[in-house]
Amino acid sequence: MRSLVRVRSIGVAAVALLCGLGVAAVARAQTDPLPSWNDGPAKQAILHFVQTTTDQANPAFVPPAARIATFDQDGTTWVEHPMYTQIVYCLDRVAMLAKSKPELRHIEPFKTVLSGDRAAIAKLLTMKNLEKILAATLTGMSVGDFKADVSRWIATAKDPRWNRLYTELVYQPMIEVMQYLRANGYRTYIVTGGGQDFVRVYSDAVYGIPIEQVVGTMGGTSFGYDKAGKPVLTKEPKLLLNDNNAGKPQGIYLMIGHRPAAAFGNSTGDRQMLEYTGGGDGARLAMLVLHDDAQREYAYGPAEGLPDTKVGTFTQALYDEAKHKGWTIISMKNDWKRIFAFDQ
Amino acid sequence: MRSLVRVRSIGVAAVALLCGLGVAAVARAQTDPLPSWNDGPAKQAILHFVQTTTDQANPAFVPPAARIATFDQDGTTWVEHPMYTQIVYCLDRVAMLAKSKPELRHIEPFKTVLSGDRAAIAKLLTMKNLEKILAATLTGMSVGDFKADVSRWIATAKDPRWNRLYTELVYQPMIEVMQYLRANGYRTYIVTGGGQDFVRVYSDAVYGIPIEQVVGTMGGTSFGYDKAGKPVLTKEPKLLLNDNNAGKPQGIYLMIGHRPAAAFGNSTGDRQMLEYTGGGDGARLAMLVLHDDAQREYAYGPAEGLPDTKVGTFTQALYDEAKHKGWTIISMKNDWKRIFAFDQ
Repeated sequence: MRSLVRVRSIGVAAVALLCGLGVAAVARAQTDPLPSWNDGPAKQAILHFVQTTTDQANPAFVPPAARIATFDQDGTTWVEHPMYTQIVYCLDRVAMLAKSKPELRHIEPFKTVLSGDRAAIAKLLTMKNLEKILAATLTGMSVGDFKADVSRWIATAKDPRWNRLYTELVYQPMIEVMQYLRANGYRTYIVTGGGQDFVRVYSDAVYGIPIEQVVGTMGGTSFGYDKAGKPVLTKEPKLLLNDNNAGKPQGIYLMIGHRPAAAFGNSTGDRQMLEYTGGGDGARLAMLVLHDDAQREYAYGPAEGLPDTKVGTFTQALYDEAKHKGWTIISMKNDWKRIFAFDQ
Repeated sequence: MRSLVRVRSIGVAAVALLCGLGVAAVARAQTDPLPSWNDGPAKQAILHFVQTTTDQANPAFVPPAARIATFDQDGTTWVEHPMYTQIVYCLDRVAMLAKSKPELRHIEPFKTVLSGDRAAIAKLLTMKNLEKILAATLTGMSVGDFKADVSRWIATAKDPRWNRLYTELVYQPMIEVMQYLRANGYRTYIVTGGGQDFVRVYSDAVYGIPIEQVVGTMGGTSFGYDKAGKPVLTKEPKLLLNDNNAGKPQGIYLMIGHRPAAAFGNSTGDRQMLEYTGGGDGARLAMLVLHDDAQREYAYGPAEGLPDTKVGTFTQALYDEAKHKGWTIISMKNDWKRIFAFDQ
């Protein structure tokens, strides 16, 4: 029997080598799919989830059609402090806008925004003023003009702390999770409170996520014709869906139609998405990024005694719910070996 | 030189055979991808579009990411006369509903619907009464219960003229177009005035279109918890987007984000989708099905002197716009060799 087994093994090995499978299997075994993660419960949870849900012999197996993973963006896949990147875009755009509408120089909140006084601007950003700025800078133009303007901005604007493009401030460990999930048949989606068509401008280049897999806050458009008689969609100040809190499962139902098998968030705005994900049958992965690394990024909660914040609030109640339901907390400080691709 | 050329050709042929490409090419050349179509301008337009837009050497080449084709459903991919299938579902569901809410037996429009008197029901279906029926039958239940109920209905309910399941009344020529497009790297979408989550129940089985590629009229949901504390989405009588007329390009922008390269419709409700498709640069395919075959299906317009109708209206103005803009009219009578898969 022994020699027969050996012959068979050699035959299988030869076929595997011919097909390149042998090489691939060896490469897989030797390569860590999550090199920017320290070994610990968070990394193990991801590896275990992917390994068990893609193994047909495992009771946790998830069929390919149901392999959906959703990622919040701000604070989960890129930096959100001190201010959401899209808000920075809107503030920058006020200056552009004032060129064609000089009267804005004398009207608040635009007057203060144009002054460039950061402390005064921060004070000014009540919900009401923010809505005025969003309406003025995100609506009234064709969807094509909007895309072109965001493309220009995102390719040049820099975060002052790192002096880096905002798109460089994505978390390398999360990029690795996305790639690892996709390599195992998962479709990855962004599910963000940010503007859906804002994020679509760079989702493919930054995350490898095609635009139709970006779910975000959705505004209405109107249909009309330009002077040449060609159809034009114009962005209107009409909210179709606020993709935060309960809006996240609602947006997922609308845009994807499947309940995710895995979901990643970082704030109370992601609670319902994680509950919805965890509420399905079978294996589920629900993870929350805790910003506890003031040195390499930022530290805020107020969960676990971290400083309180209005941008990306992570309450103690959410932390306790996560512990109770078996969701995994990702500690940026302890679980991430490096945070950005440009880190050594 | 001659012998060298011959040797090279043999070399290429051998490599092609080894890779299976030679066999595939021969098979392709011999197989008609559109066997249910009569040879004519409509069939030629489809073949020409696919061949030129997938040939990298052709100026009409469309890169894979932009290969999007959108199909209206009612009257374009399946029968819509004498009444939209989803309306038949809603009327059938009134009887189910009356079991748990017996008071409906005494309230119009439910009383007449429950009488089963088809002529009286047809008279009753004003927009206002229809809205009452839609709200009563399509909202108030969890999205899971709705899906289960539609699944049961669609697997058993039959169209009285053909005594066939509604899902058997899909147009075989259009199924072939979808398959042909997908085989050439196009992603196919349903863009329907029907309910998005109604069509998603059967889109994969009937059209080979995954649920996230179904764009339709979108209703809102509310987020809550069941008695066990599990999250539940409940269908609410809140219209997010009416995916008809201007709503079609709006829905495409929202759900897909790309302008289609090809679009298929059959009524004035599809006009803006075809205009939006045709308004892009490069090669475009825009087609309209004309129902001119009373014998094998139905005949209605009122374009080209066909009988007038309120279900799937195809006006003369739309017909003239199609001719003017180079859109292709598909004559069911002349262009389709067979209409249904069960036809001989």
